[in-house]
Amino acid sequence: MPELRKDPISDRWVIFSPARSRRPSEYSRSGEAPLPESSDFAQGNEDRTPPEIYAIRPDGSDANTPGWQLRVVPNKFPAIMRDNPDVTSASPLFQRRPAIGAHEVVIETGDSDSSLADLSTAELAQVLRCFRDRIRALKAEGRFQYVQVFKNHGQNAGATIRHSHSQIMAFPDIPEEISREMQSASAHFSREGRCIFCDLLEAENQQEERLIAQNDLFQALSPFAARVSCETWILPRTHHSHFEGHSDEDLHLLADLLRIALVKINRVLGFPPYNLILHSAPLRQAALPDYHWHIEIIPRTSYLAGLEWSCGYYQNALMPEEAARQLREAAL
Amino acid sequence: MPELRKDPISDRWVIFSPARSRRPSEYSRSGEAPLPESSDFAQGNEDRTPPEIYAIRPDGSDANTPGWQLRVVPNKFPAIMRDNPDVTSASPLFQRRPAIGAHEVVIETGDSDSSLADLSTAELAQVLRCFRDRIRALKAEGRFQYVQVFKNHGQNAGATIRHSHSQIMAFPDIPEEISREMQSASAHFSREGRCIFCDLLEAENQQEERLIAQNDLFQALSPFAARVSCETWILPRTHHSHFEGHSDEDLHLLADLLRIALVKINRVLGFPPYNLILHSAPLRQAALPDYHWHIEIIPRTSYLAGLEWSCGYYQNALMPEEAARQLREAAL
Repeated sequence: MPELRKDPISDRWVIFSPARSRRPSEYSRSGEAPLPESSDFAQGNEDRTPPEIYAIRPDGSDANTPGWQLRVVPNKFPAIMRDNPDVTSASPLFQRRPAIGAHEVVIETGDSDSSLADLSTAELAQVLRCFRDRIRALKAEGRFQYVQVFKNHGQNAGATIRHSHSQIMAFPDIPEEISREMQSASAHFSREGRCIFCDLLEAENQQEERLIAQNDLFQALSPFAARVSCETWILPRTHHSHFEGHSDEDLHLLADLLRIALVKINRVLGFPPYNLILHSAPLRQAALPDYHWHIEIIPRTSYLAGLEWSCGYYQNALMPEEAARQLREAAL
Repeated sequence: MPELRKDPISDRWVIFSPARSRRPSEYSRSGEAPLPESSDFAQGNEDRTPPEIYAIRPDGSDANTPGWQLRVVPNKFPAIMRDNPDVTSASPLFQRRPAIGAHEVVIETGDSDSSLADLSTAELAQVLRCFRDRIRALKAEGRFQYVQVFKNHGQNAGATIRHSHSQIMAFPDIPEEISREMQSASAHFSREGRCIFCDLLEAENQQEERLIAQNDLFQALSPFAARVSCETWILPRTHHSHFEGHSDEDLHLLADLLRIALVKINRVLGFPPYNLILHSAPLRQAALPDYHWHIEIIPRTSYLAGLEWSCGYYQNALMPEEAARQLREAAL
């Protein structure tokens, strides 16, 4: 059964999920392994996934049959599990706990050849509404405190399957990285009486040099301390702590800007692998004055190296101001 | 000029070194680029590197000519620079500082085809003594507080050149990741009156299941919360805070165990890319009762994915107990 272990010196947590070592991969390090003929996520292969939790079926087709535009299914090789017996904890040097939670896969399109950037704004809006709807549904279960939505696109970003998909993980507690970000935002609010993200947006809009694109509701920018070339953040321009609070109309505008950002990144970096992550306030919190949800897109054209592992210093050869200029100027 | 920038929300630091984007790479993402005929680090190409700082030349050959077994040169594309003018700092939201420091390359062997695991124990001991000697020399300059030694082996571990080499970076301050590790060790010492690493070694030796190999002075083990498959730590079995305090004889024994660990990892994982990092106490500290230097070897057979970036949770499919068993049993 999967378990979480904490390193006593660095305090970092690791999820051990031995069953995931049996996951099939459509990528191959050596290039020697034969590729599977079709993906488990393709139309017509619905019996290769666990039964669907959510789907968009404009033709009214039956669940777990072809005809869908988007499906959500439980992860067949979950890193965390809904029903996980308690792991006996040990000494302070060897802290462990059961890896409890929901782990779902959002199959974002019925077309095996489309990437997220290939979808229309309307299709992308369906994906974002699905994220929102699943967050709301997981919140309604009452047993989770945080939902993490993320996407691994391409092998170097950790994807094992080509067919465009994202993952949703719901945790019974708030992951340490999220807590730290919230504490930092909260400390700024205590000092300044304002949301740090709102302050950042205001400063970025004055300086202009790191702005990429925007619409009425959302802003895309290169963060001042971008970890990788063309790292891109998308934030609501006015204060919102919870992603799942947005309307269908809001998410259509978000889809429009996300599509622009992805297409521009593809133009500048040549269709890179990337991770996309959504940071949003914990489920049980009411609207927070000091936290502001946002999306981070992290292209993976470089490799984390010894300096990152040893000192925590990321190395980036492309200044964010130059990245933003290239992204602004990239054609759609 | 390279600069350090701090993300105001996560507090993580990024080193921006635009000149490094012009580094040549012997690897290619696409496989289409022609490979260079010989490496800048090869015998006979001494004029392609900055003049050497340190070398082992058993034949008494002149500096910067062939005949060496090991050379240390300044990094031609440094991420940090010894003479870096002050960068004007800005508002608290946009903290920056000059990326000051020394950045050196240790060319570990004169043989372009040998990896670190291919070296003899005597050759590997020369590499470790070189690390020690360079740490001592950088300490003697009086302007640095911390020296980070690390190795990127293979493209997926961030290497750009095949010829076996490590890097040494000397910083005028203590990197945050090191400070955090020291604070954690110090907190344990305050509570328990003992070094956390010494306690860990004692507990691991009682439990035995995560031990890999050892000799009179050093221990190799799989850490309880290993981030990746076959992550391996090597520590002195008795308390030492500073790597540079060790004698030639000690380092010969360390070389012997390091060679065993690398060969075993190659057997189990099939010659993976890896990072090797050395964590040692800051230069200006006297011997510390609460910190214990160690080497971490981090094989890179998997890819960091969205969950690591978003929640800080590493995902590992191989239990450390199983990794240790496979490594113990691997032939040499």
